[in-house]
Amino acid sequence: MAGSVIGYAPDASALQARELGLIDGVSSDLADLAARVDLLVLAAPVLQMPDIFRQIAPVLGPGTVITDCASTKGTVIAAAQNCLGDAFSRFVPAHPIAGSERSGPSAANSNLFVNARVFLCPQPSTDLAVLEQVSATWSGLGARVTHIGIAEHDRLFATVSHWPHALAFALVAAIARSDQGQAAQRSAGAGLRDTTRIAASSPALWAEILIDNRVEVLRAAAEFQIELQTILEALEQSDRAGLESLFGVASRWRKAMEA
Amino acid sequence: MAGSVIGYAPDASALQARELGLIDGVSSDLADLAARVDLLVLAAPVLQMPDIFRQIAPVLGPGTVITDCASTKGTVIAAAQNCLGDAFSRFVPAHPIAGSERSGPSAANSNLFVNARVFLCPQPSTDLAVLEQVSATWSGLGARVTHIGIAEHDRLFATVSHWPHALAFALVAAIARSDQGQAAQRSAGAGLRDTTRIAASSPALWAEILIDNRVEVLRAAAEFQIELQTILEALEQSDRAGLESLFGVASRWRKAMEA
Repeated sequence: MAGSVIGYAPDASALQARELGLIDGVSSDLADLAARVDLLVLAAPVLQMPDIFRQIAPVLGPGTVITDCASTKGTVIAAAQNCLGDAFSRFVPAHPIAGSERSGPSAANSNLFVNARVFLCPQPSTDLAVLEQVSATWSGLGARVTHIGIAEHDRLFATVSHWPHALAFALVAAIARSDQGQAAQRSAGAGLRDTTRIAASSPALWAEILIDNRVEVLRAAAEFQIELQTILEALEQSDRAGLESLFGVASRWRKAMEA
Repeated sequence: MAGSVIGYAPDASALQARELGLIDGVSSDLADLAARVDLLVLAAPVLQMPDIFRQIAPVLGPGTVITDCASTKGTVIAAAQNCLGDAFSRFVPAHPIAGSERSGPSAANSNLFVNARVFLCPQPSTDLAVLEQVSATWSGLGARVTHIGIAEHDRLFATVSHWPHALAFALVAAIARSDQGQAAQRSAGAGLRDTTRIAASSPALWAEILIDNRVEVLRAAAEFQIELQTILEALEQSDRAGLESLFGVASRWRKAMEA
Protein backbone atom coordinates (compact mmCIF):
# COMPACT_ATOMS: atom_id res chain seq x y z
CA MET A 1 0.00 0.00 0.00
CA ALA A 2 2.78 2.43 0.88
CA GLY A 3 6.35 2.98 -0.28
CA SER A 4 7.50 3.16 3.29
CA VAL A 5 5.97 3.61 6.72
CA ILE A 6 7.82 5.81 9.20
CA GLY A 7 6.80 5.91 12.85
CA TYR A 8 7.08 8.58 15.51
CA ALA A 9 6.22 8.18 19.20
CA PRO A 10 7.20 10.24 22.24
CA ASP A 11 8.26 6.98 23.94
CA ALA A 12 10.16 3.87 22.79
CA SER A 13 7.22 2.26 21.04
CA ALA A 14 8.17 3.40 17.51
CA LEU A 15 11.61 1.83 17.98
CA GLN A 16 9.96 -1.36 19.25
CA ALA A 17 7.66 -1.35 16.22
CA ARG A 18 10.65 -1.16 13.90
CA GLU A 19 12.45 -3.93 15.79
CA LEU A 20 9.33 -6.09 15.37
CA GLY A 21 9.40 -5.35 11.62
CA LEU A 22 6.05 -3.57 11.76
CA ILE A 23 7.31 -0.31 10.19
CA ASP A 24 10.14 0.66 7.88
CA GLY A 25 11.70 3.49 9.81
CA VAL A 26 11.55 5.77 12.81
CA SER A 27 11.68 9.54 13.18
CA SER A 28 12.66 11.17 16.45
CA ASP A 29 10.99 14.43 15.54
CA LEU A 30 7.28 14.82 14.81
CA ALA A 31 7.66 18.12 12.94
CA ASP A 32 10.45 16.70 10.77
CA LEU A 33 8.32 13.65 9.98
CA ALA A 34 5.23 15.75 9.21
CA ALA A 35 7.29 17.79 6.72
CA ARG A 36 8.21 14.83 4.54
CA VAL A 37 5.36 12.29 4.44
CA ASP A 38 2.50 12.04 1.94
CA LEU A 39 0.00 10.73 4.50
CA LEU A 40 0.17 11.49 8.21
CA VAL A 41 -1.85 9.13 10.44
CA LEU A 42 -2.29 10.59 13.93
CA ALA A 43 -3.04 8.09 16.69
CA ALA A 44 -2.75 9.87 20.03
CA PRO A 45 -4.84 10.38 23.18
CA VAL A 46 -7.59 12.89 22.39
CA LEU A 47 -6.50 15.64 24.78
CA GLN A 48 -3.06 15.68 23.11
CA MET A 49 -4.45 16.26 19.63
CA PRO A 50 -4.60 20.10 19.81
CA ASP A 51 -0.92 20.24 20.73
CA ILE A 52 -0.03 17.87 17.89
CA PHE A 53 -1.93 20.00 15.37
CA ARG A 54 -0.04 23.07 16.64
CA GLN A 55 3.31 21.29 16.21
CA ILE A 56 2.70 20.05 12.68
CA ALA A 57 0.81 23.05 11.24
CA PRO A 58 3.86 25.20 10.39
CA VAL A 59 5.80 22.40 8.67
CA LEU A 60 3.21 20.47 6.65
CA GLY A 61 4.07 20.01 2.97
CA PRO A 62 1.64 21.57 0.46
CA GLY A 63 0.13 18.18 -0.39
CA THR A 64 0.38 16.35 2.91
CA VAL A 65 -2.82 14.47 3.77
CA ILE A 66 -3.78 13.95 7.43
CA THR A 67 -6.11 11.51 9.10
CA ASP A 68 -6.54 10.47 12.72
CA CYS A 69 -7.92 7.66 14.91
CA ALA A 70 -9.42 9.59 17.81
CA SER A 71 -12.48 8.17 19.58
CA THR A 72 -14.09 11.62 19.86
CA LYS A 73 -14.49 14.00 16.96
CA GLY A 74 -15.96 17.32 18.19
CA THR A 75 -12.97 18.80 20.00
CA VAL A 76 -10.41 17.14 17.71
CA ILE A 77 -11.95 18.63 14.57
CA ALA A 78 -12.34 22.04 16.23
CA ALA A 79 -8.65 21.97 17.20
CA ALA A 80 -7.64 20.98 13.67
CA GLN A 81 -9.70 23.80 12.22
CA ASN A 82 -8.10 26.30 14.62
CA CYS A 83 -4.53 25.16 13.95
CA LEU A 84 -4.21 23.83 10.43
CA GLY A 85 -5.27 26.81 8.28
CA ASP A 86 -5.56 25.84 4.61
CA ALA A 87 -4.32 22.34 5.42
CA PHE A 88 -7.60 21.70 7.25
CA SER A 89 -9.06 20.80 3.82
CA ARG A 90 -6.55 17.93 3.70
CA PHE A 91 -7.50 16.55 7.13
CA VAL A 92 -9.99 13.67 7.02
CA PRO A 93 -11.19 12.95 10.60
CA ALA A 94 -11.52 9.20 11.13
CA HIS A 95 -12.52 6.78 13.86
CA PRO A 96 -11.68 3.12 13.21
CA ILE A 97 -13.82 0.78 15.34
CA ALA A 98 -11.10 -1.75 16.01
CA GLY A 99 -8.52 -2.64 18.61
CA SER A 100 -8.85 -4.19 22.01
CA GLU A 101 -7.90 -3.61 25.62
CA ARG A 102 -4.26 -4.27 24.54
CA SER A 103 -1.95 -1.55 23.32
CA GLY A 104 1.60 -0.98 22.08
CA PRO A 105 3.59 -2.59 19.24
CA SER A 106 3.37 -6.09 20.75
CA ALA A 107 -0.43 -5.95 20.29
CA ALA A 108 -0.06 -5.34 16.52
CA ASN A 109 -2.37 -7.36 14.27
CA SER A 110 -2.17 -7.06 10.49
CA ASN A 111 -5.84 -8.08 10.22
CA LEU A 112 -7.02 -5.50 12.77
CA PHE A 113 -9.08 -3.52 10.26
CA VAL A 114 -10.45 -6.41 8.19
CA ASN A 115 -14.25 -5.98 8.24
CA ALA A 116 -13.91 -3.25 10.88
CA ARG A 117 -16.11 -0.20 10.46
CA VAL A 118 -14.26 3.11 9.99
CA PHE A 119 -16.23 6.31 10.47
CA LEU A 120 -15.07 9.36 8.52
CA CYS A 121 -16.28 12.88 9.38
CA PRO A 122 -15.60 14.89 6.20
CA GLN A 123 -16.18 18.61 6.63
CA PRO A 124 -17.67 21.09 4.11
CA SER A 125 -14.15 22.29 3.28
CA THR A 126 -12.64 18.82 2.93
CA ASP A 127 -10.95 18.28 -0.44
CA LEU A 128 -12.89 15.54 -2.23
CA ALA A 129 -9.81 13.96 -3.80
CA VAL A 130 -8.20 13.78 -0.36
CA LEU A 131 -11.35 12.27 1.11
CA GLU A 132 -11.31 9.65 -1.65
CA GLN A 133 -7.63 8.88 -0.97
CA VAL A 134 -8.10 8.42 2.79
CA SER A 135 -11.23 6.37 2.22
CA ALA A 136 -9.32 4.11 -0.21
CA THR A 137 -6.49 3.75 2.32
CA TRP A 138 -8.87 2.46 5.00
CA SER A 139 -10.71 0.25 2.49
CA GLY A 140 -7.36 -1.13 1.36
CA LEU A 141 -6.85 -2.44 4.91
CA GLY A 142 -10.16 -4.28 4.65
CA ALA A 143 -12.30 -1.74 6.53
CA ARG A 144 -15.88 -0.75 5.72
CA VAL A 145 -15.97 3.04 5.47
CA THR A 146 -19.03 5.08 6.54
CA HIS A 147 -19.53 8.85 6.78
CA ILE A 148 -21.03 10.40 9.90
CA GLY A 149 -21.63 13.92 11.28
CA ILE A 150 -19.60 15.18 14.25
CA ALA A 151 -22.49 15.53 16.72
CA GLU A 152 -24.02 12.23 15.68
CA HIS A 153 -20.63 10.50 16.07
CA ASP A 154 -19.93 11.81 19.55
CA ARG A 155 -23.48 11.04 20.70
CA LEU A 156 -23.44 7.52 19.27
CA PHE A 157 -20.02 6.62 20.69
CA ALA A 158 -20.87 8.01 24.12
CA THR A 159 -23.67 5.43 24.07
CA VAL A 160 -21.97 2.39 22.52
CA SER A 161 -18.39 2.80 23.73
CA HIS A 162 -17.48 5.62 26.12
CA TRP A 163 -20.16 5.07 28.77
CA PRO A 164 -19.84 1.24 28.60
CA HIS A 165 -16.11 1.66 29.32
CA ALA A 166 -16.88 3.86 32.36
CA LEU A 167 -19.35 1.24 33.60
CA ALA A 168 -16.89 -1.62 33.18
CA PHE A 169 -14.26 0.34 35.12
CA ALA A 170 -16.82 1.05 37.89
CA LEU A 171 -17.91 -2.60 38.09
CA VAL A 172 -14.35 -3.91 38.30
CA ALA A 173 -13.19 -1.25 40.78
CA ALA A 174 -16.08 -2.27 43.06
CA ILE A 175 -15.13 -5.95 42.81
CA ALA A 176 -11.43 -5.17 43.31
CA ARG A 177 -12.14 -3.19 46.49
CA SER A 178 -14.73 -5.66 47.89
CA ASP A 179 -13.81 -8.35 50.40
CA GLN A 180 -14.34 -10.89 47.59
CA GLY A 181 -11.65 -9.32 45.40
CA GLN A 182 -9.20 -12.19 45.58
CA ALA A 183 -11.75 -15.02 45.45
CA ALA A 184 -13.46 -13.27 42.52
CA GLN A 185 -10.25 -13.33 40.49
CA ARG A 186 -10.12 -17.12 40.80
CA SER A 187 -13.85 -17.88 40.53
CA ALA A 188 -15.14 -15.72 37.71
CA GLY A 189 -16.67 -17.43 34.71
CA ALA A 190 -16.76 -16.45 31.05
CA GLY A 191 -19.53 -13.93 31.76
CA LEU A 192 -17.43 -11.72 34.01
CA ARG A 193 -14.37 -12.16 31.80
CA ASP A 194 -16.22 -10.83 28.75
CA THR A 195 -18.16 -8.16 30.62
CA THR A 196 -15.01 -6.69 32.14
CA ARG A 197 -12.46 -7.22 29.37
CA ILE A 198 -12.50 -3.52 28.42
CA ALA A 199 -11.75 -2.57 32.03
CA ALA A 200 -8.17 -3.69 31.35
CA SER A 201 -7.88 -0.78 28.88
CA SER A 202 -5.52 2.14 29.41
CA PRO A 203 -6.76 4.32 32.32
CA ALA A 204 -5.08 7.45 30.91
CA LEU A 205 -6.52 7.01 27.42
CA TRP A 206 -10.05 6.46 28.69
CA ALA A 207 -9.95 9.26 31.25
CA GLU A 208 -9.17 11.60 28.33
CA ILE A 209 -11.88 10.22 26.03
CA LEU A 210 -14.55 10.42 28.73
CA ILE A 211 -13.64 13.96 29.74
CA ASP A 212 -13.42 15.10 26.14
CA ASN A 213 -16.91 13.77 25.41
CA ARG A 214 -18.32 14.40 28.89
CA VAL A 215 -21.54 16.14 27.84
CA GLU A 216 -22.70 13.16 25.79
CA VAL A 217 -21.25 10.65 28.28
CA LEU A 218 -23.22 12.25 31.11
CA ARG A 219 -26.34 12.08 28.92
CA ALA A 220 -25.75 8.33 28.36
CA ALA A 221 -25.10 7.95 32.10
CA ALA A 222 -28.45 9.57 32.90
CA GLU A 223 -30.25 7.20 30.53
CA PHE A 224 -28.48 4.26 32.16
CA GLN A 225 -29.38 5.43 35.67
CA ILE A 226 -33.10 5.32 34.86
CA GLU A 227 -32.79 1.60 34.09
CA LEU A 228 -30.52 1.00 37.08
CA GLN A 229 -33.03 2.65 39.42
CA THR A 230 -35.85 0.53 37.99
CA ILE A 231 -33.83 -2.64 38.62
CA LEU A 232 -32.92 -1.63 42.19
CA GLU A 233 -36.54 -0.82 43.05
CA ALA A 234 -37.76 -4.09 41.51
CA LEU A 235 -35.13 -5.99 43.50
CA GLU A 236 -36.10 -4.28 46.76
CA GLN A 237 -39.74 -5.22 46.14
CA SER A 238 -38.95 -8.73 44.75
CA ASP A 239 -40.85 -7.61 41.65
CA ARG A 240 -40.12 -10.50 39.31
CA ALA A 241 -42.39 -9.29 36.48
CA GLY A 242 -40.77 -5.84 36.60
CA LEU A 243 -37.26 -7.29 36.31
CA GLU A 244 -38.29 -9.72 33.59
CA SER A 245 -39.85 -6.94 31.53
CA LEU A 246 -36.73 -4.74 31.66
CA PHE A 247 -34.40 -7.70 31.06
CA GLY A 248 -36.60 -8.67 28.10
CA VAL A 249 -36.04 -5.28 26.43
CA ALA A 250 -32.29 -5.79 26.83
CA SER A 251 -32.24 -9.44 25.79
CA ARG A 252 -34.24 -8.85 22.60
CA TRP A 253 -32.04 -5.92 21.55
CA ARG A 254 -28.84 -7.84 22.25
CA LYS A 255 -30.02 -10.90 20.33
CA ALA A 256 -30.96 -8.67 17.37
CA MET A 257 -27.40 -7.30 17.44
CA GLU A 258 -26.03 -10.72 16.49
CA ALA A 259 -28.59 -11.27 13.72
CA MET B 1 -19.93 -42.59 32.52
CA ALA B 2 -23.59 -43.67 32.75
CA GLY B 3 -25.59 -46.66 31.61
CA SER B 4 -28.26 -44.40 30.24
CA VAL B 5 -29.30 -40.77 30.58
CA ILE B 6 -33.02 -40.03 30.77
CA GLY B 7 -34.31 -36.47 30.47
CA TYR B 8 -37.38 -34.76 31.84
CA ALA B 9 -38.52 -31.22 31.03
CA PRO B 10 -41.89 -29.50 31.41
CA ASP B 11 -41.59 -28.36 27.78
CA ALA B 12 -40.46 -30.03 24.53
CA SER B 13 -36.74 -29.63 25.21
CA ALA B 14 -36.19 -33.18 26.53
CA LEU B 15 -37.73 -34.56 23.32
CA GLN B 16 -35.51 -32.22 21.28
CA ALA B 17 -32.47 -33.40 23.24
CA ARG B 18 -33.30 -37.02 22.41
CA GLU B 19 -33.84 -36.17 18.74
CA LEU B 20 -30.41 -34.53 18.72
CA GLY B 21 -28.93 -37.72 20.22
CA LEU B 22 -27.86 -35.92 23.40
CA ILE B 23 -29.72 -38.26 25.79
CA ASP B 24 -30.88 -41.87 25.67
CA GLY B 25 -34.50 -41.47 26.67
CA VAL B 26 -37.25 -39.17 27.87
CA SER B 27 -39.66 -39.36 30.78
CA SER B 28 -42.92 -37.43 30.76
CA ASP B 29 -43.25 -37.58 34.53
CA LEU B 30 -40.71 -36.13 36.98
CA ALA B 31 -41.87 -38.25 39.93
CA ASP B 32 -41.72 -41.43 37.85
CA LEU B 33 -38.21 -40.54 36.68
CA ALA B 34 -37.03 -39.65 40.20
CA ALA B 35 -38.21 -43.07 41.41
CA ARG B 36 -36.00 -45.06 39.06
CA VAL B 37 -32.68 -43.24 38.53
CA ASP B 38 -29.40 -43.64 40.43
CA LEU B 39 -28.38 -39.99 40.04
CA LEU B 40 -30.85 -37.14 39.64
CA VAL B 41 -29.36 -33.90 38.24
CA LEU B 42 -31.72 -30.96 38.76
CA ALA B 43 -31.23 -28.00 36.41
CA ALA B 44 -34.17 -25.64 36.88
CA PRO B 45 -34.76 -21.94 37.59
CA VAL B 46 -34.03 -21.31 41.27
CA LEU B 47 -37.52 -20.27 42.34
CA GLN B 48 -38.88 -23.59 41.01
CA MET B 49 -36.51 -25.72 43.08
CA PRO B 50 -38.71 -25.91 46.24
CA ASP B 51 -41.63 -27.25 44.20
CA ILE B 52 -39.36 -29.80 42.52
CA PHE B 53 -38.06 -31.04 45.88
CA ARG B 54 -41.68 -31.41 47.08
CA GLN B 55 -42.57 -33.45 43.98
CA ILE B 56 -39.64 -35.85 44.17
CA ALA B 57 -39.41 -36.31 47.96
CA PRO B 58 -42.15 -38.97 48.34
CA VAL B 59 -40.91 -41.16 45.47
CA LEU B 60 -37.10 -41.12 45.75
CA GLY B 61 -35.49 -44.55 45.83
CA PRO B 62 -33.53 -45.45 49.02
CA GLY B 63 -30.19 -44.90 47.26
CA THR B 64 -31.01 -42.12 44.79
CA VAL B 65 -28.34 -39.41 44.75
CA ILE B 66 -29.32 -35.82 43.91
CA THR B 67 -27.30 -32.86 42.72
CA ASP B 68 -28.30 -29.52 41.18
CA CYS B 69 -26.96 -26.67 39.07
CA ALA B 70 -28.60 -23.65 40.69
CA SER B 71 -26.75 -20.32 40.69
CA THR B 72 -27.83 -19.56 44.26
CA LYS B 73 -27.43 -21.95 47.14
CA GLY B 74 -29.03 -20.50 50.32
CA THR B 75 -32.73 -20.87 49.49
CA VAL B 76 -32.21 -24.01 47.39
CA ILE B 77 -30.46 -25.88 50.20
CA ALA B 78 -33.02 -24.68 52.76
CA ALA B 79 -35.84 -25.96 50.54
CA ALA B 80 -34.08 -29.30 50.09
CA GLN B 81 -33.63 -29.65 53.83
CA ASN B 82 -37.31 -28.87 54.42
CA CYS B 83 -38.58 -31.29 51.80
CA LEU B 84 -36.22 -34.21 51.42
CA GLY B 85 -36.14 -35.70 54.93
CA ASP B 86 -33.51 -38.45 55.22
CA ALA B 87 -32.71 -38.11 51.51
CA PHE B 88 -31.19 -34.67 52.27
CA SER B 89 -27.99 -36.57 53.15
CA ARG B 90 -27.89 -37.76 49.52
CA PHE B 91 -28.26 -34.24 48.05
CA VAL B 92 -24.97 -32.60 47.02
CA PRO B 93 -25.65 -28.93 46.17
CA ALA B 94 -23.58 -27.87 43.14
CA HIS B 95 -22.98 -24.80 41.01
CA PRO B 96 -21.09 -25.41 37.76
CA ILE B 97 -19.48 -22.20 36.44
CA ALA B 98 -20.13 -22.91 32.78
CA GLY B 99 -22.62 -22.14 30.07
CA SER B 100 -23.31 -18.98 28.13
CA GLU B 101 -26.14 -16.66 27.16
CA ARG B 102 -27.51 -19.53 25.01
CA SER B 103 -29.92 -22.14 26.34
CA GLY B 104 -31.84 -25.22 25.23
CA PRO B 105 -30.69 -28.50 23.60
CA SER B 106 -29.36 -26.76 20.48
CA ALA B 107 -26.78 -25.00 22.71
CA ALA B 108 -25.41 -28.35 23.97
CA ASN B 109 -21.62 -28.66 24.10
CA SER B 110 -19.94 -31.88 25.18
CA ASN B 111 -16.89 -29.92 26.35
CA LEU B 112 -18.92 -27.46 28.42
CA PHE B 113 -17.44 -28.56 31.73
CA VAL B 114 -13.85 -29.17 30.63
CA ASN B 115 -11.69 -27.02 32.96
CA ALA B 116 -14.83 -25.35 34.33
CA ARG B 117 -14.95 -24.79 38.06
CA VAL B 118 -17.76 -26.57 39.91
CA PHE B 119 -18.57 -25.42 43.44
CA LEU B 120 -20.05 -28.03 45.79
CA CYS B 121 -21.73 -27.03 49.08
CA PRO B 122 -21.66 -30.24 51.15
CA GLN B 123 -23.65 -29.97 54.40
CA PRO B 124 -22.80 -31.48 57.82
CA SER B 125 -25.31 -34.27 57.16
CA THR B 126 -24.10 -35.01 53.62
CA ASP B 127 -23.15 -38.68 53.14
CA LEU B 128 -19.41 -38.75 52.39
CA ALA B 129 -19.66 -41.60 49.88
CA VAL B 130 -22.37 -39.67 48.03
CA LEU B 131 -20.26 -36.52 48.07
CA GLU B 132 -17.36 -38.51 46.62
CA GLN B 133 -19.62 -39.94 43.90
CA VAL B 134 -21.01 -36.55 42.83
CA SER B 135 -17.54 -35.03 42.94
CA ALA B 136 -16.22 -37.84 40.71
CA THR B 137 -19.12 -37.33 38.30
CA TRP B 138 -18.25 -33.66 37.81
CA SER B 139 -14.52 -34.42 37.62
CA GLY B 140 -15.31 -37.08 35.02
CA LEU B 141 -16.72 -34.31 32.80
CA GLY B 142 -13.42 -32.45 33.10
CA ALA B 143 -14.47 -30.00 35.80
CA ARG B 144 -12.33 -28.72 38.69
CA VAL B 145 -14.31 -29.31 41.88
CA THR B 146 -14.07 -26.92 44.88
CA HIS B 147 -16.02 -26.88 48.16
CA ILE B 148 -17.55 -23.65 49.41
CA GLY B 149 -19.89 -22.55 52.24
CA ILE B 150 -23.44 -21.41 51.45
CA ALA B 151 -23.09 -17.80 52.63
CA GLU B 152 -19.68 -17.43 51.00
CA HIS B 153 -21.05 -18.83 47.72
CA ASP B 154 -24.05 -16.52 47.56
CA ARG B 155 -21.95 -13.49 48.47
CA LEU B 156 -19.21 -14.28 45.94
CA PHE B 157 -21.63 -14.96 43.07
CA ALA B 158 -23.67 -11.83 43.79
CA THR B 159 -20.37 -10.00 43.17
CA VAL B 160 -18.93 -11.88 40.19
CA SER B 161 -22.07 -12.97 38.35
CA HIS B 162 -25.49 -11.85 39.57
CA TRP B 163 -24.85 -8.11 39.86
CA PRO B 164 -22.79 -8.00 36.61
CA HIS B 165 -25.78 -9.57 34.82
CA ALA B 166 -28.13 -6.91 36.26
CA LEU B 167 -25.71 -4.20 35.10
CA ALA B 168 -25.44 -5.62 31.59
CA PHE B 169 -29.23 -5.74 31.33
CA ALA B 170 -29.45 -2.10 32.55
CA LEU B 171 -26.79 -0.92 30.08
CA VAL B 172 -28.43 -2.62 27.11
CA ALA B 173 -31.97 -1.55 28.07
CA ALA B 174 -30.74 2.06 28.17
CA ILE B 175 -29.14 1.73 24.72
CA ALA B 176 -32.18 -0.07 23.30
CA ARG B 177 -34.50 2.71 24.49
CA SER B 178 -32.20 5.60 23.48
CA ASP B 179 -32.58 7.43 20.17
CA GLN B 180 -29.32 5.71 19.09
CA GLY B 181 -30.79 2.22 19.51
CA GLN B 182 -30.83 1.29 15.83
CA ALA B 183 -27.53 2.94 14.89
CA ALA B 184 -25.91 1.32 17.94
CA GLN B 185 -26.86 -2.14 16.75
CA ARG B 186 -24.95 -1.55 13.51
CA SER B 187 -22.02 0.44 14.88
CA ALA B 188 -20.94 -1.36 18.03
CA GLY B 189 -17.43 -2.75 18.18
CA ALA B 190 -16.03 -5.79 19.96
CA GLY B 191 -16.05 -3.90 23.27
CA LEU B 192 -19.82 -3.49 23.42
CA ARG B 193 -20.37 -6.99 22.03
CA ASP B 194 -18.34 -8.58 24.83
CA THR B 195 -19.59 -6.26 27.55
CA THR B 196 -23.23 -6.96 26.73
CA ARG B 197 -23.14 -10.63 25.66
CA ILE B 198 -24.68 -11.79 28.94
CA ALA B 199 -27.59 -9.35 28.43
CA ALA B 200 -28.89 -11.83 25.81
CA SER B 201 -29.43 -14.33 28.65
CA SER B 202 -32.87 -15.56 29.67
CA PRO B 203 -34.82 -12.72 31.37
CA ALA B 204 -36.94 -15.18 33.38
CA LEU B 205 -33.96 -17.16 34.65
CA TRP B 206 -32.05 -14.05 35.74
CA ALA B 207 -35.04 -12.34 37.33
CA GLU B 208 -35.34 -15.43 39.55
CA ILE B 209 -31.64 -15.62 40.42
CA LEU B 210 -31.46 -11.92 41.30
CA ILE B 211 -34.58 -12.00 43.46
CA ASP B 212 -33.50 -15.19 45.16
CA ASN B 213 -30.12 -13.66 46.09
CA ARG B 214 -31.39 -10.09 46.46
CA VAL B 215 -29.78 -9.31 49.82
CA GLU B 216 -26.27 -10.01 48.52
CA VAL B 217 -27.06 -8.51 45.10
CA LEU B 218 -28.19 -5.26 46.71
CA ARG B 219 -24.96 -5.28 48.74
CA ALA B 220 -22.93 -5.63 45.52
CA ALA B 221 -25.07 -2.90 43.94
CA ALA B 222 -24.28 -0.53 46.80
CA GLU B 223 -20.54 -1.19 46.41
CA PHE B 224 -20.86 -0.52 42.68
CA GLN B 225 -22.76 2.71 43.21
CA ILE B 226 -19.93 4.17 45.27
CA GLU B 227 -17.60 3.78 42.27
CA LEU B 228 -20.27 5.01 39.84
CA GLN B 229 -20.81 8.15 41.90
CA THR B 230 -17.07 8.83 42.02
CA ILE B 231 -16.89 8.56 38.23
CA LEU B 232 -19.89 10.84 37.67
CA GLU B 233 -18.50 13.50 39.99
CA ALA B 234 -15.08 13.30 38.35
CA LEU B 235 -16.70 13.64 34.92
CA GLU B 236 -18.75 16.66 36.00
CA GLN B 237 -15.57 18.32 37.28
CA SER B 238 -13.38 17.13 34.36
CA ASP B 239 -11.18 15.56 37.05
CA ARG B 240 -8.78 13.57 34.90
CA ALA B 241 -6.56 12.41 37.77
CA GLY B 242 -9.60 11.19 39.71
CA LEU B 243 -10.86 9.14 36.78
CA GLU B 244 -7.40 7.77 36.02
CA SER B 245 -6.91 6.66 39.61
CA LEU B 246 -10.22 4.75 39.76
CA PHE B 247 -9.71 3.26 36.28
CA GLY B 248 -6.23 2.19 37.37
CA VAL B 249 -7.63 0.14 40.28
CA ALA B 250 -9.95 -1.60 37.81
CA SER B 251 -7.38 -2.07 35.06
CA ARG B 252 -4.76 -3.59 37.38
CA TRP B 253 -7.29 -6.03 38.90
CA ARG B 254 -8.61 -7.07 35.49
CA LYS B 255 -5.11 -7.63 34.09
CA ALA B 256 -4.25 -9.76 37.12
CA MET B 257 -7.33 -11.88 36.40
CA GLU B 258 -5.76 -13.04 33.13
CA ALA B 259 -2.42 -13.77 34.71
